[in-house]
Amino acid sequence: MTVYLVGAGPGDADLLTLKAARLLSQAEVVVHDRLVDHSILAMVRGHAELIDVGKQEGGSGTQALINELLISLGRDYDTVVRLKGGDPYLFGRGGEEAAALIDSGVPFEVVPGVTSALSAPLAAGIPVTHRGIAGGVTVVTGHTQDGRSIDLTPFARGELTLVVLMGIAERERIARELIDGGCARDTPVAIVESSWTESERVIRGSLDDLAAMQCSPPAVIVIGRVAALDLVDAARDAVSAR
Amino acid sequence: MTVYLVGAGPGDADLLTLKAARLLSQAEVVVHDRLVDHSILAMVRGHAELIDVGKQEGGSGTQALINELLISLGRDYDTVVRLKGGDPYLFGRGGEEAAALIDSGVPFEVVPGVTSALSAPLAAGIPVTHRGIAGGVTVVTGHTQDGRSIDLTPFARGELTLVVLMGIAERERIARELIDGGCARDTPVAIVESSWTESERVIRGSLDDLAAMQCSPPAVIVIGRVAALDLVDAARDAVSAR
Repeated sequence: MTVYLVGAGPGDADLLTLKAARLLSQAEVVVHDRLVDHSILAMVRGHAELIDVGKQEGGSGTQALINELLISLGRDYDTVVRLKGGDPYLFGRGGEEAAALIDSGVPFEVVPGVTSALSAPLAAGIPVTHRGIAGGVTVVTGHTQDGRSIDLTPFARGELTLVVLMGIAERERIARELIDGGCARDTPVAIVESSWTESERVIRGSLDDLAAMQCSPPAVIVIGRVAALDLVDAARDAVSAR
Repeated sequence: MTVYLVGAGPGDADLLTLKAARLLSQAEVVVHDRLVDHSILAMVRGHAELIDVGKQEGGSGTQALINELLISLGRDYDTVVRLKGGDPYLFGRGGEEAAALIDSGVPFEVVPGVTSALSAPLAAGIPVTHRGIAGGVTVVTGHTQDGRSIDLTPFARGELTLVVLMGIAERERIARELIDGGCARDTPVAIVESSWTESERVIRGSLDDLAAMQCSPPAVIVIGRVAALDLVDAARDAVSAR
């Protein structure tokens, strides 16, 4: 009986870790959320049970139900995989699930994954750090936490790249807070939609444009001087198509 | 002729992506840096040439030589892998190599990896974000950039987790800047040495202790309330040994 909290990476099955791929081929039950791509679920061995808890996600009451489900499955099965988009410990609520498993005495292991906070910008040709342009990166979500949003003012000085996950619905507020905090209106912004899937799309603009930029989730917002970079080789599409 | 800038992850070969593992088995030449583990280099196919550029790293003059090497190899071989610890676009100088390849017209592709900025804390049972404790994370290095260090004062308020890569030699300065900026002296700190290798070790303390904590590189410093968490299941060692 072990529950594996596994990062599924940004969407492309090729970006699963070797460990994640092996666990998917061994699991008796896989509990996954909405953001996990079908190509990844196709790697789960036949006859394994797939449980989609994505549609119910959001509230903390529901998270409690997921925790109970994992505890119950962990007691009934040898190998349970809890599959999460990206990395389990960066906005994956993996810490809450781990704490619940510890409280219940159910053994578990956490397997890190490729986070979309880095790999979505990368797909758009944007390194989140770059010599002489950005010496660090901050990752937040658009969601408020406990009714409060993170104070974004410190990021107005432009030394750090700001990456916002799940921030599309809040982009007007985010732009306003940054501009009010002193961030230049012409600070470059890139929105990377559905990175590492066939519907990947990059929209570029400035902080002044952010509220009006046409986009839909899932998407990652990159704010800062690196967002003006576009280090994508012209031959990339040809290479990927091989 | 394609140069692949590939993230090797934190050290454990099991945390390579499927794509990285496949490229290592196909590459004719692999150019790697110091932090890439032997278990990963063992996955390179026989007869492939291994070039260690790690000992020469550091200065920007040397980076120019690495760029030239990649351009030259990219022209001579079909599949060149430039293997970097962690992720190529988070302090990997991958952006500089990509820019040089673009300037030279050598096709390239970037493959994201599991970054030690997240996976080292994870190995120590620390989620970098956690509901009610940390609503975001900032990643910087201990190195100064262009002679300047990032102003750490904004992180003194404790809303965000601060992860410092390559910061061991600078930990006295980092602690002093944070405390001078108003960060509480009892802010939890964890140092994760050699994560995901057999010599992994976690040292815990507070910001006040940081300068005196005994540790050696490679190590990741985690500063913030999450650093007091220890969500490691007791059964983990037994599980990993299977």
